[in-house]
Amino acid sequence: MSAALPASTLAPDDLSALCLGLAQRAKAASRVLTTVPTAAKNRWLLLAADALLAHQDELIAENAKDVAAAPGFGLNAAAIDRLTLNPKRIAAAAEGLRQVAALPDPVGEVREATERPNGLQVLKVGVPLGVVFFIYESRPNVTTDAAALCVKSGNAVILRGGKEALHSNTALHHLLSIELVRAGLPANAVQLVPTTDRQAVGHLLAMNDLIDLAIPRGGKSLIQRVAAEARMPVIKHFDGVCHVYVDAAADLAVAERIIVNAKCQRPGTCNAAECLLVHAGVADEFLPRAGAALQAKGVELRGCPETCRRVPGARAATEDDYRTEYLDLVLSVKVVAGFDEAVEHIATYGSHHTDAIVTRDIGAARAFTRRVDSAAVMVNASTRFNDGFELGLGAEIGISTNKFHARGPCGLRELTTYKFVVTGDGHVRE
Amino acid sequence: MSAALPASTLAPDDLSALCLGLAQRAKAASRVLTTVPTAAKNRWLLLAADALLAHQDELIAENAKDVAAAPGFGLNAAAIDRLTLNPKRIAAAAEGLRQVAALPDPVGEVREATERPNGLQVLKVGVPLGVVFFIYESRPNVTTDAAALCVKSGNAVILRGGKEALHSNTALHHLLSIELVRAGLPANAVQLVPTTDRQAVGHLLAMNDLIDLAIPRGGKSLIQRVAAEARMPVIKHFDGVCHVYVDAAADLAVAERIIVNAKCQRPGTCNAAECLLVHAGVADEFLPRAGAALQAKGVELRGCPETCRRVPGARAATEDDYRTEYLDLVLSVKVVAGFDEAVEHIATYGSHHTDAIVTRDIGAARAFTRRVDSAAVMVNASTRFNDGFELGLGAEIGISTNKFHARGPCGLRELTTYKFVVTGDGHVRE
Repeated sequence: MSAALPASTLAPDDLSALCLGLAQRAKAASRVLTTVPTAAKNRWLLLAADALLAHQDELIAENAKDVAAAPGFGLNAAAIDRLTLNPKRIAAAAEGLRQVAALPDPVGEVREATERPNGLQVLKVGVPLGVVFFIYESRPNVTTDAAALCVKSGNAVILRGGKEALHSNTALHHLLSIELVRAGLPANAVQLVPTTDRQAVGHLLAMNDLIDLAIPRGGKSLIQRVAAEARMPVIKHFDGVCHVYVDAAADLAVAERIIVNAKCQRPGTCNAAECLLVHAGVADEFLPRAGAALQAKGVELRGCPETCRRVPGARAATEDDYRTEYLDLVLSVKVVAGFDEAVEHIATYGSHHTDAIVTRDIGAARAFTRRVDSAAVMVNASTRFNDGFELGLGAEIGISTNKFHARGPCGLRELTTYKFVVTGDGHVRE
Repeated sequence: MSAALPASTLAPDDLSALCLGLAQRAKAASRVLTTVPTAAKNRWLLLAADALLAHQDELIAENAKDVAAAPGFGLNAAAIDRLTLNPKRIAAAAEGLRQVAALPDPVGEVREATERPNGLQVLKVGVPLGVVFFIYESRPNVTTDAAALCVKSGNAVILRGGKEALHSNTALHHLLSIELVRAGLPANAVQLVPTTDRQAVGHLLAMNDLIDLAIPRGGKSLIQRVAAEARMPVIKHFDGVCHVYVDAAADLAVAERIIVNAKCQRPGTCNAAECLLVHAGVADEFLPRAGAALQAKGVELRGCPETCRRVPGARAATEDDYRTEYLDLVLSVKVVAGFDEAVEHIATYGSHHTDAIVTRDIGAARAFTRRVDSAAVMVNASTRFNDGFELGLGAEIGISTNKFHARGPCGLRELTTYKFVVTGDGHVRE
């Protein structure tokens, strides 16, 4: 399989030309993709799934080079595990491609249709965005997921994976490219930035005339860099400081189940809870039992004085704690005087990602869903449900806390825009 | 009525503090607007319409100060006419407010509703964007239109009109504010930047933590400045280089009616046609008659050699002509060898705004609507129909050629985003 160019062989002008070439080829491919039938895109996805399985041994061999080099990049055991490909993970990646093939095509979808009083037919029709620049960190299965979602939604994609996964990504991209040609799609529908030079990202983020959207996926510093440098729109969230608010009218057994799930089921994810807010009226009854249940799962609690008084072993929270996305088995806790204080706390310290209320009071539930300004607001459900698959989008390329374009989980439809298609019989304006 | 501060009285630090105060008050007002009932917003719109009529004389007196000063700002007769308020125009502004009151409220609208297999109810609900910064040039009726659309869609708005209209805008804003309070809405839902200092715009465009959207409306240089400086998303189009393509299978009488309407009905608008493309197969028959019809309406034609050969009086077009938005009775014309050349010409020279095909061939119509990457694609209809009212949106705050968020005319719904509201019975993820 083709090797990537090492960064050191490229002079600045060559790097700039290389990036321009990538973007121009992507733009040309995107124009072809606009009119490609759904069947051809699905054929590619199924061929690519078969190719992953058929070339499993080569993929694992290439991946082994990355795994061997990983300690040199400073990766810890957990990161090396996420980087590693094995037959089970390759099968899962192939299954992911098949699932995207099974999803409806958002391109050509008629989203609204009206006939005006003068007989003019007005359709709003789904169309691709164009070219997506996707920048991500080490897990190689993201390579196939992102390529599948972008191409199925009619977009060309430029992939920029982490340097730690370069051999794996190059091998995966090679297979995807071969099958693009076999399926009759433009080979440049999926391109991989063939250098690990960090400046390549800066060049591409400046090309807003050729690239329509940037999507960073990884740590906060990566996302901040992309948001600061990109001249095109960015689908992103910086962090997920997600809250569970236990209302005065909560079913406390439900509240305990939800906070334990929201914190512990997968603490490293953006939709895991980072802060528990408890109405003062139920603090005496709820905090000791919930605190013990969380501690039994290994959660460190950092609370306000009212919390610490009720939960043995809880340490005092600082102001900073309430702004922190721990991504770990740590939870900040605060007792609030009432509903309004909970909403104000979330507005002040939250990140507009996912916030939940636990209550049996329908009025409190309605007020919470209206007043909390987050991408997803949960009533009597775990914050962990803010996920493209769980909310019925089929798959997701990321979760947005932007208010513009798409908010919350972004699936195939969120990778498209629309155009108005207006048909008359010679209509003119009077 | 309150007078605006003259720019010269403000030191740089004071200007910066003034802008920050505007944005902070707007943000606070926007949080209240999120939960305001539709009835209160409509009550304000109707009260404001009454107030415009009741205070017609004062409005005209304030406007007279702007009109008197207008020649000193270099405004020509047409611009002074647009600036002038009279009873008829005030009545039209009041009627505009009443029409917005009659439109459906996009806030709280359930846009999608599903129940997941596990019983979780998932709603996508319309919510306001937050704070809109609206920057526009002289026509004072835009002040009431923009305020109406922003507040009805639940957003606070900061208005920045042209210096030429400062007295008129201050008087209009004063009336709108009084009626906000009377209707029980936050007074800061509509604010006017109370200085004509150009640096105020720069300050506000940098406040992406407080302002969610910028909308510039005016000449290309204003829009370019806003797009370059804004750190928040911008709804905009730079220009409208709109095409009418007359296909080999066109009904030539329809084609003539459409190009005359698209060019002449209101040549100064962004959706007026600027370029006519004619299939070589019908050029002999179509160009002499269409050329004469356009010239009879006072249109200057600038054509390719094939055009000039067939249209007496047409002068030779330069390469630049094909990129120019004339906004005047001038039209570039080109004979193309076939459908593909027409589509390529539009891709190369167009501005992705509005492009039309005239044809009886359904295959050509379908291919054109798929391949032309514009906000609105017209089949056998004038480009002039790309307009919020004509396409059924009720009203519009602008037309977007962005692909992100909203494309084409932007009405009330395009001034909103959505949130996911997810309700369970204690659901947790396994």
